[in-house]
Amino acid sequence: MRAAIMHAPGDVRVEDRDRPALQQPTDAVIKLVAACVCGSDLWPYRGADTLNEPRTMGHEYVGIVEETGADVKSVKPGQFVVGSFFASDNTCEICRSGYQSGCVHRQGVGGAQAEYLRVPLADGTLVATPEMPDAGKVPSLLAASDVLGTGWFAAKAAEVGPGKTVAVVGDGAVGLLGVLAAQQMGAERIIAMSRHADRQALAREFGATDIVEERGEAGVQKIRELTGGLGAHSVIEAVGTQESMLQAIHATRAGGHVGFVGVSHDVALPGRDLFYSHVHLHGGPAPVRQYLPELIDLILRGDINPEKVFDLELPLEQAAEAYRAMDERRAIKVLLRP
Amino acid sequence: MRAAIMHAPGDVRVEDRDRPALQQPTDAVIKLVAACVCGSDLWPYRGADTLNEPRTMGHEYVGIVEETGADVKSVKPGQFVVGSFFASDNTCEICRSGYQSGCVHRQGVGGAQAEYLRVPLADGTLVATPEMPDAGKVPSLLAASDVLGTGWFAAKAAEVGPGKTVAVVGDGAVGLLGVLAAQQMGAERIIAMSRHADRQALAREFGATDIVEERGEAGVQKIRELTGGLGAHSVIEAVGTQESMLQAIHATRAGGHVGFVGVSHDVALPGRDLFYSHVHLHGGPAPVRQYLPELIDLILRGDINPEKVFDLELPLEQAAEAYRAMDERRAIKVLLRP
Repeated sequence: MRAAIMHAPGDVRVEDRDRPALQQPTDAVIKLVAACVCGSDLWPYRGADTLNEPRTMGHEYVGIVEETGADVKSVKPGQFVVGSFFASDNTCEICRSGYQSGCVHRQGVGGAQAEYLRVPLADGTLVATPEMPDAGKVPSLLAASDVLGTGWFAAKAAEVGPGKTVAVVGDGAVGLLGVLAAQQMGAERIIAMSRHADRQALAREFGATDIVEERGEAGVQKIRELTGGLGAHSVIEAVGTQESMLQAIHATRAGGHVGFVGVSHDVALPGRDLFYSHVHLHGGPAPVRQYLPELIDLILRGDINPEKVFDLELPLEQAAEAYRAMDERRAIKVLLRP
Repeated sequence: MRAAIMHAPGDVRVEDRDRPALQQPTDAVIKLVAACVCGSDLWPYRGADTLNEPRTMGHEYVGIVEETGADVKSVKPGQFVVGSFFASDNTCEICRSGYQSGCVHRQGVGGAQAEYLRVPLADGTLVATPEMPDAGKVPSLLAASDVLGTGWFAAKAAEVGPGKTVAVVGDGAVGLLGVLAAQQMGAERIIAMSRHADRQALAREFGATDIVEERGEAGVQKIRELTGGLGAHSVIEAVGTQESMLQAIHATRAGGHVGFVGVSHDVALPGRDLFYSHVHLHGGPAPVRQYLPELIDLILRGDINPEKVFDLELPLEQAAEAYRAMDERRAIKVLLRP
């Protein structure tokens, strides 16, 4: 089969690889319908994460179940499924508390930018749609598998709700879908921090009521001006740098909540900032599996249209161009068709 | 009047000072009945906080109202009052959300290790008891003004509740009263981390079900062993160092809560630890004012006896010895009588 392989920073090639086979009785193999490039894939692409050897890429996926191991009960061949980027048993105490991405049997899922994918712990990781979805719903269902699920978790972690003012740090796909999530959860006011006209427009389409172009402490000051000097009730952090984390913490009022989902890179949070800010801080890899049934339902009913974050679609063979387009910020998010 | 003054690290003297007077119409001046030495007073005593000039000390206090400014309505001369270490208006949006220690008009209160104290924003800071309390209740009421209120907030921040396993990092007075708070809030299991026999005994008296003597990562391993490998649901951090913060974070299960109240010193939390631990982190200076009515009620009813943390009582004139005893860990907490 064909698969995207990252050989080194900036070097992504589509090559032949063996088609994955079942390894455990709890595995499924799926034929991919669509995958995409994640903001987190750009960390190794830009050399910010170490790459010791060529690596198959991709952890956001929808597809058709091809075969299942003997112990798999909840999905069967021929079904359309939406996946999660961490495989989870969905039965352990941590999963049952809603943290499937912290499952005691958690395994990373990788290699979804390809034709086929082996998914461990299929029962606890995949969710089948009630029937074969219309082709037009595929991009939104794909978004649910990570970028929407992650924005959703960020909004939950930030305790977004009716009557609250929410600020969103980061105008990538996750930040933008954090705006959508905040709107769905009834936020009164949603402030998107962005200096790109196209992303500002999409943020407004997803429900942003205000745009702040300033960054860092100037951005914090602007948020404070917009919130009577107090700061936002809820702040979604969707970048993962020291600057973005401090921006999020400082833009939050005392007693407010920061939900952070940007994968942390070189972040060291000063204890005194946390201590005197009085914020709640929560985040990490999103437990997408928890939200999939709800998100799939919202998408199939047409209540949300997260697919708008995909502003470029390419065949899998052009994966290298997909990475380039996202790296150069020519595209917000690229969908790949095997 | 007589007052304890810190001149330099290790150098506390009791000297004559002018008796404080009303400065604002919202002030009260109280005649102190009792005060004490806080764990946080030891930071400058040990040279860990900078001391630019001689400083009056003490921020935990109970006393009798001596005089009040023209705008003070809720307390009056002759009443016995319990104070908070941050003065707050108790009417702003932050106060109403329960974060009086983050009040937009917040002012530090200092100089309680003395005969008289000026308290700003008296209506929002002091709580009067229904009647003059028995002398035997004075130490417990004094504890409410900081060390109990802080342990209480830590337990709230750690989302302690029925059915939960709670671990407490730090066996100072705040940690010990965190144990008491956890017991009051219905925790199923309370693990106190301590290697001092006297503190272990008091922890058990306050409700600890288990004692862990190991520290750092060895302590974390022990907590994990006691919790089926998962970590505690709730962890109270009552020290404020890098080691204690990481100990608390690592001892908490995915999705669990860390309540941190140790004043942060040289703490820089690695973003990746926070990201992958999936914990909720919340803390800071306790909004004691929020809890005072409830805590005073529990104390006057005899439901809790926080005064047990005071294992030494001295006249104000011996403040220097009080600091020495706490610094050398000969005493858990010292009560001072003016």
